Amino acid sequence: MRPEHLKSLLEAVRDGEVSLEEAMEALRTLPFREAAGILADTHRLLRQGFSEAVYAEGKTHNQVGDALVVLREAEGAAIATRVDGACGAVLLKRIPDGVYDPSSRLFRVGKLPLRKTKRVVGVVCAGTSDLPVAEEAAQVLEFSGWVVNRIQDVGVAGLHRLLGKLEALRSCSVLIVVAGMEGALPGVVGGLVGCPVIAVPTSVGYGVGIRGYAALLTMLSACASGLTVMNIDNGYGAAVATQRILNGMDADDRLE
Amino acid sequence: MRPEHLKSLLEAVRDGEVSLEEAMEALRTLPFREAAGILADTHRLLRQGFSEAVYAEGKTHNQVGDALVVLREAEGAAIATRVDGACGAVLLKRIPDGVYDPSSRLFRVGKLPLRKTKRVVGVVCAGTSDLPVAEEAAQVLEFSGWVVNRIQDVGVAGLHRLLGKLEALRSCSVLIVVAGMEGALPGVVGGLVGCPVIAVPTSVGYGVGIRGYAALLTMLSACASGLTVMNIDNGYGAAVATQRILNGMDADDRLE
Amino acid sequence: MRPEHLKSLLEAVRDGEVSLEEAMEALRTLPFREAAGILADTHRLLRQGFSEAVYAEGKTHNQVGDALVVLREAEGAAIATRVDGACGAVLLKRIPDGVYDPSSRLFRVGKLPLRKTKRVVGVVCAGTSDLPVAEEAAQVLEFSGWVVNRIQDVGVAGLHRLLGKLEALRSCSVLIVVAGMEGALPGVVGGLVGCPVIAVPTSVGYGVGIRGYAALLTMLSACASGLTVMNIDNGYGAAVATQRILNGMDADDRLE
Amino acid sequence: MRPEHLKSLLEAVRDGEVSLEEAMEALRTLPFREAAGILADTHRLLRQGFSEAVYAEGKTHNQVGDALVVLREAEGAAIATRVDGACGAVLLKRIPDGVYDPSSRLFRVGKLPLRKTKRVVGVVCAGTSDLPVAEEAAQVLEFSGWVVNRIQDVGVAGLHRLLGKLEALRSCSVLIVVAGMEGALPGVVGGLVGCPVIAVPTSVGYGVGIRGYAALLTMLSACASGLTVMNIDNGYGAAVATQRILNGMDADDRLE
Amino acid sequence: MRPEHLKSLLEAVRDGEVSLEEAMEALRTLPFREAAGILADTHRLLRQGFSEAVYAEGKTHNQVGDALVVLREAEGAAIATRVDGACGAVLLKRIPDGVYDPSSRLFRVGKLPLRKTKRVVGVVCAGTSDLPVAEEAAQVLEFSGWVVNRIQDVGVAGLHRLLGKLEALRSCSVLIVVAGMEGALPGVVGGLVGCPVIAVPTSVGYGVGIRGYAALLTMLSACASGLTVMNIDNGYGAAVATQRILNGMDADDRLE
Amino acid sequence: MRPEHLKSLLEAVRDGEVSLEEAMEALRTLPFREAAGILADTHRLLRQGFSEAVYAEGKTHNQVGDALVVLREAEGAAIATRVDGACGAVLLKRIPDGVYDPSSRLFRVGKLPLRKTKRVVGVVCAGTSDLPVAEEAAQVLEFSGWVVNRIQDVGVAGLHRLLGKLEALRSCSVLIVVAGMEGALPGVVGGLVGCPVIAVPTSVGYGVGIRGYAALLTMLSACASGLTVMNIDNGYGAAVATQRILNGMDADDRLE
Amino acid sequence: MRPEHLKSLLEAVRDGEVSLEEAMEALRTLPFREAAGILADTHRLLRQGFSEAVYAEGKTHNQVGDALVVLREAEGAAIATRVDGACGAVLLKRIPDGVYDPSSRLFRVGKLPLRKTKRVVGVVCAGTSDLPVAEEAAQVLEFSGWVVNRIQDVGVAGLHRLLGKLEALRSCSVLIVVAGMEGALPGVVGGLVGCPVIAVPTSVGYGVGIRGYAALLTMLSACASGLTVMNIDNGYGAAVATQRILNGMDADDRLE
Amino acid sequence: MRPEHLKSLLEAVRDGEVSLEEAMEALRTLPFREAAGILADTHRLLRQGFSEAVYAEGKTHNQVGDALVVLREAEGAAIATRVDGACGAVLLKRIPDGVYDPSSRLFRVGKLPLRKTKRVVGVVCAGTSDLPVAEEAAQVLEFSGWVVNRIQDVGVAGLHRLLGKLEALRSCSVLIVVAGMEGALPGVVGGLVGCPVIAVPTSVGYGVGIRGYAALLTMLSACASGLTVMNIDNGYGAAVATQRILNGMDADDRLE
Repeated sequence: MRPEHLKSLLEAVRDGEVSLEEAMEALRTLPFREAAGILADTHRLLRQGFSEAVYAEGKTHNQVGDALVVLREAEGAAIATRVDGACGAVLLKRIPDGVYDPSSRLFRVGKLPLRKTKRVVGVVCAGTSDLPVAEEAAQVLEFSGWVVNRIQDVGVAGLHRLLGKLEALRSCSVLIVVAGMEGALPGVVGGLVGCPVIAVPTSVGYGVGIRGYAALLTMLSACASGLTVMNIDNGYGAAVATQRILNGMDADDRLE
Repeated sequence: MRPEHLKSLLEAVRDGEVSLEEAMEALRTLPFREAAGILADTHRLLRQGFSEAVYAEGKTHNQVGDALVVLREAEGAAIATRVDGACGAVLLKRIPDGVYDPSSRLFRVGKLPLRKTKRVVGVVCAGTSDLPVAEEAAQVLEFSGWVVNRIQDVGVAGLHRLLGKLEALRSCSVLIVVAGMEGALPGVVGGLVGCPVIAVPTSVGYGVGIRGYAALLTMLSACASGLTVMNIDNGYGAAVATQRILNGMDADDRLE
Repeated sequence: MRPEHLKSLLEAVRDGEVSLEEAMEALRTLPFREAAGILADTHRLLRQGFSEAVYAEGKTHNQVGDALVVLREAEGAAIATRVDGACGAVLLKRIPDGVYDPSSRLFRVGKLPLRKTKRVVGVVCAGTSDLPVAEEAAQVLEFSGWVVNRIQDVGVAGLHRLLGKLEALRSCSVLIVVAGMEGALPGVVGGLVGCPVIAVPTSVGYGVGIRGYAALLTMLSACASGLTVMNIDNGYGAAVATQRILNGMDADDRLE
Repeated sequence: MRPEHLKSLLEAVRDGEVSLEEAMEALRTLPFREAAGILADTHRLLRQGFSEAVYAEGKTHNQVGDALVVLREAEGAAIATRVDGACGAVLLKRIPDGVYDPSSRLFRVGKLPLRKTKRVVGVVCAGTSDLPVAEEAAQVLEFSGWVVNRIQDVGVAGLHRLLGKLEALRSCSVLIVVAGMEGALPGVVGGLVGCPVIAVPTSVGYGVGIRGYAALLTMLSACASGLTVMNIDNGYGAAVATQRILNGMDADDRLE
Repeated sequence: MRPEHLKSLLEAVRDGEVSLEEAMEALRTLPFREAAGILADTHRLLRQGFSEAVYAEGKTHNQVGDALVVLREAEGAAIATRVDGACGAVLLKRIPDGVYDPSSRLFRVGKLPLRKTKRVVGVVCAGTSDLPVAEEAAQVLEFSGWVVNRIQDVGVAGLHRLLGKLEALRSCSVLIVVAGMEGALPGVVGGLVGCPVIAVPTSVGYGVGIRGYAALLTMLSACASGLTVMNIDNGYGAAVATQRILNGMDADDRLE
Repeated sequence: MRPEHLKSLLEAVRDGEVSLEEAMEALRTLPFREAAGILADTHRLLRQGFSEAVYAEGKTHNQVGDALVVLREAEGAAIATRVDGACGAVLLKRIPDGVYDPSSRLFRVGKLPLRKTKRVVGVVCAGTSDLPVAEEAAQVLEFSGWVVNRIQDVGVAGLHRLLGKLEALRSCSVLIVVAGMEGALPGVVGGLVGCPVIAVPTSVGYGVGIRGYAALLTMLSACASGLTVMNIDNGYGAAVATQRILNGMDADDRLE
Repeated sequence: MRPEHLKSLLEAVRDGEVSLEEAMEALRTLPFREAAGILADTHRLLRQGFSEAVYAEGKTHNQVGDALVVLREAEGAAIATRVDGACGAVLLKRIPDGVYDPSSRLFRVGKLPLRKTKRVVGVVCAGTSDLPVAEEAAQVLEFSGWVVNRIQDVGVAGLHRLLGKLEALRSCSVLIVVAGMEGALPGVVGGLVGCPVIAVPTSVGYGVGIRGYAALLTMLSACASGLTVMNIDNGYGAAVATQRILNGMDADDRLE
Repeated sequence: MRPEHLKSLLEAVRDGEVSLEEAMEALRTLPFREAAGILADTHRLLRQGFSEAVYAEGKTHNQVGDALVVLREAEGAAIATRVDGACGAVLLKRIPDGVYDPSSRLFRVGKLPLRKTKRVVGVVCAGTSDLPVAEEAAQVLEFSGWVVNRIQDVGVAGLHRLLGKLEALRSCSVLIVVAGMEGALPGVVGGLVGCPVIAVPTSVGYGVGIRGYAALLTMLSACASGLTVMNIDNGYGAAVATQRILNGMDADDRLE
């Protein structure tokens, strides 16, 4: 409710066109709709520029399915994360036109329209074991209409492979760099490019590297200034952070 | 060295205009200058779009001073972080036109030219105790030529103050949100805006909050998808991460 | 045994009305009955105002069943916590009029009489995944005769839903706020109300949020003064802490 | 702004008694004053039933002094926590009628009026080393107008002293139990009384007990159900939590 | 090999009664038998006064069985710890006169002769869940010929039960006190008795108490001076520590 | 108060030899003196066989001095632990016949009479840096009347020194083994002797060994069964644990 | 590409023997082949002196099989680590001449030729439970053509067994010492020999020793200077570290 | 004492050339001198190939001085580590020909003779702040007679500097790589060379990098197989580990 709306409402009250009851009702919902600027989450796509995913962990199969159905109705497409095999099978029965990817544990139905941009997001990872997290990021971005360039099999223990991808790295607008074990890759990449680098530690590793803490600490401490870091295994979060950046990059009207 | 440069060089060799020795010398430095895409760090401003700061901790006063002098000569301005009072006093004697801010522990000499953009960076913090880290971020950005809007004294324990700043929050292109104690502020802010939100935990707190770990964990776990997180107290890193984003936002020529 | 009782006993000894043996017997049990003020735990309901639950983890099915039978005989009703599915099935066979709830893992037989009060306890949680812990708290309170108002699906990443429940929150005498992930909800709620707020972290989360430590640290560090915190996933404990408060609130005779 | 106020305002607009501009101004502040139920923090005393203290750590002497002056003007009295000796000396010069207690590190000026209640708060601690935290809790309560009964020098390694205070413990409406080292005292006390028990771990200890983590974990794990726990050394928070409970206990009008 | 043995051997060499080869053979084993004072571990019973148990975890069924057979031949009886159900079943087939206790996970065959002493070891625990660890300690002691007094169902949350066992506690020469959750029991017991108290934390608990760390820290920090502490769940180690003490208590000949 | 005393008292009441008031007074203190078996701590020497030390950390100089004076009056001698230099100087002025040892930070006045035993306690440590903790243990034992054999400069990195002390190690009734760094010494010693071994980790070390956690974990995990472990740097506690064992060893009358 | 190659190329360009296009192509790959000195990892054997193993964890059976086939083609033999039973069975079907060892979880096909050296690597471990990690190290070394001497069943709790193997220990050029529990063995061994000692902590243990952290900390803190440490359970890494050393030891031509 | 020595001794006894007493004395010291192969630590240079340094932390100035004097007498030169400024000043007075380096905190007197080898040790570090630890390693090696090549100012955030030093890195026989912050440098170096790489984490860093844990975990988890790791800040240990390797590399006589 913009100020002019408020003014109109008050004028209507003054002029008797709107009853006191109607005005009170309109004003009652004000703080929650306009003043606080918050709408229902099915409208998050409009409000924040990225859609909401269903986080499946800790939900029953029914709860996940219901949420997907509601979101799809609202936005024409929907996606769920952390869907294990059993849940995926149930969802496929209920939503036959859905797609389940067991590696990234994503279940999606439909897809958002392709964005009108030439920008590309790079999703970089070092080893086969980090692929599930990298794919969670990449496929959520693709679901949301962005173009992704997967740059895989590059690691700091074999710098030549990384340097051979330098051109590819530099042609991306945002880089999501996924790494487990010691997690040094994002710091090295950050020293090579000037674009935003989002580091995602994975829980791949053993001994002190187990659960991803070594990789997380490495990324937070990385010398290459300006890395930003996500929670361990949070490929979905990296995809959303990327969209926050990309939306701004193309929002050129904001510049006037 | 772009491909056309290489071609010219080879043509000159073929045509006898450049001696073998000169060509070999030029090509010897190639991998470190052009092929691997890396130049001396005094050129980082050109290469990555943000200048390098001198990290003063663990360096002698002389080492910090020398680095500032070199950087200023190369770029016309220079800045050092984590400069304690004793070091600041020494630097002021050596570089009389420098400026030392004891709260943010920044020492700078000169300033980079103002960027041609209408974008504004919001630096948000909750309490007086988080100001030094917030100022490190804000002043590094200002030194680098960006416009900063400081939004202070907003905290989750008093939502009204935060909600009162909603308009200001939404007019920023990037938000740096600094918080100690339980570190819940960035998650709440992230739910209110759609732009990139960079969360910086501070070491302000006591008991389990000491050293900033509680705030760090909170931010990494925050439900509001798409927060990215810096190391504890790393205001400088947040400023660089912001520049990585802003540079891309205004690099519209990249889009063609 | 109050002083006057002791005096009477000694007078009776002096007057020969009570034999030495009887007096010695009476005095022998004194420290354990009166001085230390402690009775058998089946009397805890009388002594402390809340009944004892059977903690099923680490006990055999038989041990849980026996304890329930004893408690029910003593108090007319009994409840067990942390009852897994296998144990629940065994208990249902042995105690056919019992009720087993697999989500909260509570098994109860009977119910304590409704308390004579108009006070209501609010049990607040943000997401579906936190429901089991919230339900443990809510159902233990209901079993004990209190009225519970469940306030669900409110989270700090969507403030509007929380603000929409403000009236409900403020009409409660005590609030139990359950949250996993980053655990910021109790701190935000604590800033909105003046009643006692008991924060319960849950082990819902992943990466650094796994096992509930991030939520626990957040709650302990929360700026909103006067939150009190329970162990991770300890819904039962929150219910008992609530009863300690409610008993005092209605014990008006104590005020004279 | 209660509904009836809103109605009056709208009636005044309708009847031309209030100009549009005046109404808009009044309504503009609505969401932050009435709808969201939040007033300036100097009004917290009215809103939540306990006054706000100035947290001195990380603030300059001037900032602490300014805050005290403002609060005192608003409420007639003010208190600051974590005031070290140097700051205390400066404050005494600026606010000559203030009182500084170096042990609890509290600085206060004036005192809130005594509450009209017969309830007493027990502040229990085991050893001399825990006194500063216990005193922070006790003196904040006394500043706020409550009556405190200090029960000291009781520890689990000498049960007789604790049992000798049983009567005193049981005559309190709320117990704050402060303990460092292994932190077992609150669990033992919780087994002896039925009233709310707020456990405060202190950073007193050495070896694995250093910084208070052993005590914190003990209290969170305590078998005696229904303990609630504060952050380490957070005597002030315990005082506020106590007031949340006490306010409710005496708010009998709420019971209808 | 005592000095007199060495002298005899050398005299025999001098006198030609023992060949050089025989003497060299005898002396070759010297450093490992006499000088370093170490014999094969099957002789540990003689050397250190307690027998060696087979630690089954990480061993194959065959390896556990072999070790039991060897030890039994050497000492007439043998015991294995941490034997899971599958392994126990295999062992019972191979060693039909063995006994397997699934709760304590002990497998034993035979028993060492009863010690000639009037001393009794108290094994104390609070709850049903701690019984497996307590039984590991108690049964290893009984296997080794000592008399054990089990004192169960005493906990700090119900002091009366503990105080009711005071006589029993004081009649023991050594107390092993087993506790999980917050682990406060040994500290309280240590304040009541003067004999050696060996504290054993168990991994019983949830939230911050999980895996036994809270209990371990509590016991290490306990105020009641002179507690000694074992690793988490190490009932066997407590039994051996007890035997080290008991052997010395009855080794009165050592006093001359 | 033994049963016969109680009987006498009651007979005296019956026979009028003792007034009601006198009997009530005598019985009033009963639960704390006899029934619960607890006397004032100045009587701990009688009750538990070891005297109480004053723990100076966190106490004012006056508080430490007062406690020493009271204890000395009660027992003829007194000792304080963790006395820093400033406190030691103050104490020496107040108690001129006291002795202050800056290395072990002990202050003592007088000494308890030598115990009638031939038993010797071995206090073993590896390096110079562990001496303060070892001396705290040794001097507390000597203060309490026991004979100590210091076995120093033995470490696992130079086994020959340790093996050269084998005889000395084996002639002790109890061994206190103090070690920092990796803390392997107690485990090795425990494999060589059969007597009780009390392991004390020290906070000597750097990197991962800092604060003594590496040593603590090593000792708790040591393979040599039957080690018992103290808190980090807790030499005093080791001395008390030793006395609990020694008292029992010589309490031969207990055996009848 | 050595300098002389570069010179030849440039001469050929000058002389018209090589076209500009050919020269540019040759120079384009320069930085990744010669300047950065990095070749494909299938050439690691040539480059670094040890072959690459396939890390099976987190890979599908197919991915592991493919990698083995490629490596074997390149080097004539191949090995995979962390191969669980299910994967091993699949691999055996696909590569019938392969060998799978379930204990060390290694799958290998073929073997590299025996090295021409008299040096022997000692692989030392204390207990049966550490064997899998020790075997991973030993068998990787044997696969790579080195001679291994297994020295087992030696532990610090039974020094005699260790001292009995002194000769064997001293005849090795490198010692890999594997230990779980408290991990003291490498420190003791390091004090007895002068050769390189590589310490490998294992995740064998319980309580505080669980997951291998106690052993890791012990080894990092070990007094015996010059131990180097691997990640927990990293037998493969120890084998590679050993080869780095051995390659240098026999690379005598390097000395000229 | 070799077997032939033993045989001679016994023959001499048999032949009456050596008295029983002499033989017994010779055999008594056997286990500690010859059998266990251990000599006094002043002989460590002979025994293990590297000299012993005095660890100054936790020692008095006198103790450090005494140790240096003894070692210098035994070996002609001596070195102490972790010598702070105050101690260094005292030592310089007592040992005027000593040299104190405040940065590396080393105090040395004299130097061991230069080794006869062409091998060079590389000591690599990234930043100015890591220099003290790198210098500790380098100067201990130089003191011990080895040639060191310092390779500084190379870090993963500026790969070009590292790649420019590739030749230098590859000409070393052993590389010590020192890094703080995120500690990624050793992993990158390990991928570029085939020689032994010893990684030393430093305590340089802030936030999660504080105290060196992030760097330690990174190094232990590094993908580049065959890194070995030292304790945090343990430059001295790295120097000793290097000597263990170098001694073996040049001990060609061992190869037959």
